[in-house]
Amino acid sequence: MKAKAVVLLSGGLDSATCLAAALKAGFEVYALSFDYQQRHHSELAAARRVAAAAGVAGHQVMEVNLRQWGGSALTADGIAVPENREDSGIPVTYVPARNLIFLALATGYAEALGARDIFIGVNSVDYSGYPDCRPAFIGAFAEAARLGTRAADEEWKFVIHTPLQYWSKSEIIRHGVALGVDYSLTVSCYQADAEGRACGVCDSCRLRRAGFAEAGVPDPTHYR
Amino acid sequence: MKAKAVVLLSGGLDSATCLAAALKAGFEVYALSFDYQQRHHSELAAARRVAAAAGVAGHQVMEVNLRQWGGSALTADGIAVPENREDSGIPVTYVPARNLIFLALATGYAEALGARDIFIGVNSVDYSGYPDCRPAFIGAFAEAARLGTRAADEEWKFVIHTPLQYWSKSEIIRHGVALGVDYSLTVSCYQADAEGRACGVCDSCRLRRAGFAEAGVPDPTHYR
Repeated sequence: MKAKAVVLLSGGLDSATCLAAALKAGFEVYALSFDYQQRHHSELAAARRVAAAAGVAGHQVMEVNLRQWGGSALTADGIAVPENREDSGIPVTYVPARNLIFLALATGYAEALGARDIFIGVNSVDYSGYPDCRPAFIGAFAEAARLGTRAADEEWKFVIHTPLQYWSKSEIIRHGVALGVDYSLTVSCYQADAEGRACGVCDSCRLRRAGFAEAGVPDPTHYR
Repeated sequence: MKAKAVVLLSGGLDSATCLAAALKAGFEVYALSFDYQQRHHSELAAARRVAAAAGVAGHQVMEVNLRQWGGSALTADGIAVPENREDSGIPVTYVPARNLIFLALATGYAEALGARDIFIGVNSVDYSGYPDCRPAFIGAFAEAARLGTRAADEEWKFVIHTPLQYWSKSEIIRHGVALGVDYSLTVSCYQADAEGRACGVCDSCRLRRAGFAEAGVPDPTHYR
């Protein structure tokens, strides 16, 4: 019998690759996506397409309305998504504690399923400056998850898998292509329209476009 | 100007006392409650009464449907709430990763508000065997919250306050009475009815009832 794993699936390029890596590693995959009233809401349709194409064992879409408190260009109407951003530091598209929240919910789902493995497509190389994508955070989270669940009493641990952590965007794409990921199904743009078409100029679009160019893979993104 | 704090408020005895302690400590309090489709849904009405009586600066009720995956007597219809339970270990009323999820969302709310202080009414003395109420978990969580938010880049920390951690139930009640908490507003019962009336026999009712008796305080609980 295969071991179960929960895979965080946004519907973007990275999480689609992460899901393919979890399947390749032999897990029975339960995908978890979030309707957090994100600006790029059409990524959820992408998540459903990706999960269906991959043939996952289950796919939960959890509603958590992070727009209730906002604090990010992705969850507050008053903050614009930057285009052709050049400054460094934490960008305004950072959503307060997003991966902490998503991993906590993934831990709850995993514990209810009897899974000990969680996959998340965080990345430290071609990343956008988000604090919740760093290895130190992932390690600290795993320890909190162990201590805050029945894992501590039963003497086992959750393993937080981050297969993309040290890959460049082009390496992610090359791995994904080798695993059969159809990137035309995915949506990365922070301000994708209702049909999932990308703007081409936000941080996420620029990283993605450069990744395909560097990988020498034709860019299947639907631009508007 | 007062510092802001997020206070997790279930509507039960402990969280009402915790909220009073946060106000007493001089914080501007933003309460956070969860509609997680809990069996004892009427505790949310209690949370609204407690927040209003305390005069908080804000109160968010966040919907997170933990019934989507269940795994607890509080979130799955097929699992009964035990009455007069005598066994030890983690009880079936434990909700997978509940405090991890609630604290993660509190961290997001705090970061969006510009608050660095979070209060949670966990307790290690008269507790029900829940792993997510222990000091080791709270400490590990605080470190994950620091590393997964802008706190790490800006070199500050979230402080997770647990004023009730080492108090017995009767000590909690005595402190709360001194702080002016009106316990008739609160609902602790795991199977409270729609009017918030308590069963008197679940773990939570038994601990509460014994606490009032030991504290020598008349029990204001509405039993059915």
